[in-house]
Amino acid sequence: MSENKIVPRTLSGFMELLPNEQILFNQMKEKIQKSYEKFCFLPLNTPIIELADILLAKAGGETEKQIYRFNKGEHDLALRFDLTVPLAKYVAMHYGELSFPFKRYQIGKVYRGERPQKGRFREFYQCDIDIIGDNELNVLYDAELPSVIYTTFQELGFSDFTIHINNRKLLNGLFDSLNLSEQSTEIMRIIDKLAKIGKENVIEELSNLNINKDSILTIMNFIEISGNNEEKIIALKNIGIKNGIFNSGLKELEDVINCIKLFGMPESNYEIDLTIARGLDYYTGTVYETFLNEYPSLGSVCSGGRYDNLAEYYTDKKLPGVGISIGLTRLFYKLNELNAIKVNKKSMADVLVVSTSDDIKPCIPVATEFRNANINTEIFMEDKKIKSKFKYADKLSIPFVVVLGETEIETNTVTLKDMNTGEQSQLSVEEAIKVIKKTI
Amino acid sequence: MSENKIVPRTLSGFMELLPNEQILFNQMKEKIQKSYEKFCFLPLNTPIIELADILLAKAGGETEKQIYRFNKGEHDLALRFDLTVPLAKYVAMHYGELSFPFKRYQIGKVYRGERPQKGRFREFYQCDIDIIGDNELNVLYDAELPSVIYTTFQELGFSDFTIHINNRKLLNGLFDSLNLSEQSTEIMRIIDKLAKIGKENVIEELSNLNINKDSILTIMNFIEISGNNEEKIIALKNIGIKNGIFNSGLKELEDVINCIKLFGMPESNYEIDLTIARGLDYYTGTVYETFLNEYPSLGSVCSGGRYDNLAEYYTDKKLPGVGISIGLTRLFYKLNELNAIKVNKKSMADVLVVSTSDDIKPCIPVATEFRNANINTEIFMEDKKIKSKFKYADKLSIPFVVVLGETEIETNTVTLKDMNTGEQSQLSVEEAIKVIKKTI
Repeated sequence: MSENKIVPRTLSGFMELLPNEQILFNQMKEKIQKSYEKFCFLPLNTPIIELADILLAKAGGETEKQIYRFNKGEHDLALRFDLTVPLAKYVAMHYGELSFPFKRYQIGKVYRGERPQKGRFREFYQCDIDIIGDNELNVLYDAELPSVIYTTFQELGFSDFTIHINNRKLLNGLFDSLNLSEQSTEIMRIIDKLAKIGKENVIEELSNLNINKDSILTIMNFIEISGNNEEKIIALKNIGIKNGIFNSGLKELEDVINCIKLFGMPESNYEIDLTIARGLDYYTGTVYETFLNEYPSLGSVCSGGRYDNLAEYYTDKKLPGVGISIGLTRLFYKLNELNAIKVNKKSMADVLVVSTSDDIKPCIPVATEFRNANINTEIFMEDKKIKSKFKYADKLSIPFVVVLGETEIETNTVTLKDMNTGEQSQLSVEEAIKVIKKTI
Repeated sequence: MSENKIVPRTLSGFMELLPNEQILFNQMKEKIQKSYEKFCFLPLNTPIIELADILLAKAGGETEKQIYRFNKGEHDLALRFDLTVPLAKYVAMHYGELSFPFKRYQIGKVYRGERPQKGRFREFYQCDIDIIGDNELNVLYDAELPSVIYTTFQELGFSDFTIHINNRKLLNGLFDSLNLSEQSTEIMRIIDKLAKIGKENVIEELSNLNINKDSILTIMNFIEISGNNEEKIIALKNIGIKNGIFNSGLKELEDVINCIKLFGMPESNYEIDLTIARGLDYYTGTVYETFLNEYPSLGSVCSGGRYDNLAEYYTDKKLPGVGISIGLTRLFYKLNELNAIKVNKKSMADVLVVSTSDDIKPCIPVATEFRNANINTEIFMEDKKIKSKFKYADKLSIPFVVVLGETEIETNTVTLKDMNTGEQSQLSVEEAIKVIKKTI
């Protein structure tokens, strides 16, 4: 390469796919979008750049360190680090123009300058849905979201997944009843390790926090509640925690679990999981995590929950909501690594039209007929040997090649080759259209 | 509002739509995407942030002033200001992994810190397609792009548009034959004003550049060539400009014009326009501009052309290409202002399911049946008066409302109201599905 060239390179932590991968990524993105639309979430597309004071209204700590922030002209600007803060701004700003409950989806890139490491991205897609109420929001909406998750992951080709559901008020009420609210963060951190470190070690670590034996027993009884969803609800009713917050959480959880059935969800796809909390300050009621059971290493692939007040930094209006998010960039990366992507359209083209000679023009009207029949059609128009043209189709995984030579032109036919089976047959254009449409 | 709130606001020059507008915007975006895909352009999604030296390899002047540039850690970064430079980087970087001709589309946001003014955006969508050849690229690809433009604007609901086509070699050859190559920029600037200032003034301004009368005559003869496409080609052949560049441009233009017909384009949708140049240094052959004839104030809504070398700043490989771009944000803004958007799905929901009582649960399985039939279905789950529920449907332009009351539940039916006609009828869910599917 000449010395005066700039070495072409892409920043680390920024996903840039080859076309065959991008086709799969886009299919996943589109399936998520269409699932969200089936439940009538309205599209939003807020700017990627916002005023820094807007984005940092609530933030602090890690977020503030990771944010991309810069000046342009007199403005202190930043790139959005999630889609929730822009939603809060949007709803506060356009309150009078929106209809409530306001159901919105947004699928877009967000930016976090994390330390680069494998599978961590600085630019990544979030696919969010939220339902925002004006002053109040029926708990039935909490029961609708698992149904959206179910539809979405079915569309993505997964059926063996479990949505874990909890209600933060149960945990809050439990800690409140034991006078342990101030230590709840540490306690939750220990409980979270149950699967990893075992029961004995959890008890020991809880003792180290100076929690008395009775309280530890109650906590352990709570997190060890087992059985199916109905049995868990009964056990929660009988556990003997007398606390208003706890009871209200239990009532909500019972309502949500009962309603999920009405949405037609198989019982195998959701379960009460009393150990999930999803961070301690933001969520206030129902919380969700979703696990692909065949790929536990992915962790939760779709999480979210209920919150009391979306936009308190921008408005006095009380705007409770419930939402979930899929981190698509990471999900795609991990699934791709595991060879576990289930969408299956590998080629943008359904058919490649080629000429056996250097006269490519006869291919053009044939291709136009295919396109008019809604078939994605490409014409190979470079003057290459027929072997190169087939190689091109092969490399791009194009399922059909239509060949036009002297014989075909004379007889007003085409030769259609199925690239998967190798079969080939001489047909009229109409017949070829039928064969291709049957496959795609 | 309390004093400690931050006023929610969006940066000027950044489009942020209300949901009803966003629905229209997204439909336009999707129609453009599907049209590009029908011609088998492969999707790319490059990062919005790149290293500044990559983006600024070629830039200078205005671009450099407008670019969003900032430091993060040790990196000098910038936001992409178009999709061409990232494409050049991508092709140079992934040359060995791509199949040529490489046809790609990219639809994404780009950033230019222009002075804010009405209808000018700092964040806006470009919808680009390019076909990149490895060392060479058949001129037939230049004839394919008008067909893509045609399909795209048809899909967007426009039929009265004209694609103006020229070949830069005609202009370059003309100026070369007159020994005026060095003044070509100024000459083109004057010619561009023909429609505005009239022939006399153009001649006067050309004289002011010290161009001799014969040369002015030749230039005027050239730009005043009229007639249909065939007549223009004949006139160009007879104009008597003896120049190799000119002749090669004429041959290309003739090939392109003849081939466009084979793609099935109506002659009314394209014409040779010898006055368009699209900037003087980037394009080297065919150039395109597209005008919606009913809305001339929009200027060209889709432009592009042929270039000799996509990635010369990053690689020694010769990569000629041809491409076009639609500036969707501006197009949407202008059409919206003119009330001229032709896509017509106004609501995300096809049907809203409501209950006449405060028992919403019976609505849920009905909604699930609709969704399983691929109908976008929303349930109104807040406990409001029936009037409010209809108002909600009305505000969101939802075409159908399904009402469930005691009678319906007892008889296992639903009441379906067509919100456009006001008609309402009591039906089984299956019948309601049929009625809705007929409309959507």
